[in-house]
Amino acid sequence: VAGAVLAGDLCLSWCDEMYAGSALPAEVLGRGRKVFDRMRTELMCGQYLDMLEQVRATTSVQQARHVIRYKSANYTVAQPLLLGGALGGAPAPLLAAYDDYGLALGEAFQLRDDVLGVFGDPAATGKPAGDDLREGKRTVLISLTLERADSRQAALVRRHLGDPHLSAEGVSALREVIEETGALAHSELLIDERVERSLAALAVADLDAEAREVLRELAAAATDRRR
Amino acid sequence: VAGAVLAGDLCLSWCDEMYAGSALPAEVLGRGRKVFDRMRTELMCGQYLDMLEQVRATTSVQQARHVIRYKSANYTVAQPLLLGGALGGAPAPLLAAYDDYGLALGEAFQLRDDVLGVFGDPAATGKPAGDDLREGKRTVLISLTLERADSRQAALVRRHLGDPHLSAEGVSALREVIEETGALAHSELLIDERVERSLAALAVADLDAEAREVLRELAAAATDRRR
Repeated sequence: VAGAVLAGDLCLSWCDEMYAGSALPAEVLGRGRKVFDRMRTELMCGQYLDMLEQVRATTSVQQARHVIRYKSANYTVAQPLLLGGALGGAPAPLLAAYDDYGLALGEAFQLRDDVLGVFGDPAATGKPAGDDLREGKRTVLISLTLERADSRQAALVRRHLGDPHLSAEGVSALREVIEETGALAHSELLIDERVERSLAALAVADLDAEAREVLRELAAAATDRRR
Repeated sequence: VAGAVLAGDLCLSWCDEMYAGSALPAEVLGRGRKVFDRMRTELMCGQYLDMLEQVRATTSVQQARHVIRYKSANYTVAQPLLLGGALGGAPAPLLAAYDDYGLALGEAFQLRDDVLGVFGDPAATGKPAGDDLREGKRTVLISLTLERADSRQAALVRRHLGDPHLSAEGVSALREVIEETGALAHSELLIDERVERSLAALAVADLDAEAREVLRELAAAATDRRR
């Protein structure tokens, strides 16, 4: 564990070293600094929230979405785009479009990841089936399930979720509840809505055609149904 | 533990944010970058070495001094001085003097800290008596002791060192062995030698009188016998 913490610290230092050593002019790097700094601080806070919700084990849908926003959406898509925009001197309407696109797509990406963490094909996702369930991850999918569960279903979730030795049968039982409650279908709806919103943001006039196409492909790749 | 790791990550990001946001001209910050980056990378590596030696529990005096050099000496005194020197545009002979002073004093500081970790007065050091012994720290002081110990003394060290429940009597027994073997006296000799060497480095012509005085006071403060 100590070695892993130090490896993480080293990578964190190096990320900064790479930014400063990217050979971009000092004035350009200065423009991006605010985004770069905020991105890292928000990531740590988001990760802390995520950890806290897992320990509390009382996550509402709203709290789970709050975590997604700070931990994943900003860090995965929005802030990197804003950083590139700031470095490239993008005009304000384009930055606003990046923000809208990035937040919506980042949320969709995480919602997809959560669905795959429960229903994904291990051969396609590279994660063991049901691993998120064994870890007891407090995802939006799980919060939606608990919100809609009757007492029998809720008891089943509470019994199995976070059990590190959960059997394949236990995983199946949890999957059934997630489907029966409509939480899976609702998650897919949330994903679709966010993908749509992200694509709509690309209609901004300042975006050139090639960049628009790449960002469309990114939206598809980040949210496809690999299962 | 997860919260502590994240707090550390946050501080690491902020240290960089403070460097970049110090309002020094970009050209000056660029001059200090190499030192700043090397300092952090060496610190992580030194901390890793320290952890490794503790796990291996086979530290030679040479290995323990190697850890001190990378973990403490560079980070505590030498690199911060070199960073200031680089930012201030110090001439090469002055930078060389900072390096000599800093490495020697940094080593002396750590050797003093190790002695205080075993023999220090808790009221003065703020650390519980014998805590380093309970933790099983592989310091130069301990390596010197094991190098000089006869079989009875070595057996006693191996039995007590790293015992988290070590009693006050156990601490006393270990202290006796450290004194009997001459390891304590030898540590004090090493400290004196390094303090002398650090003060000798201050004779460089480029150093102004006020700075020389401050660095002399720092050498005394960092190695005094608070016990």
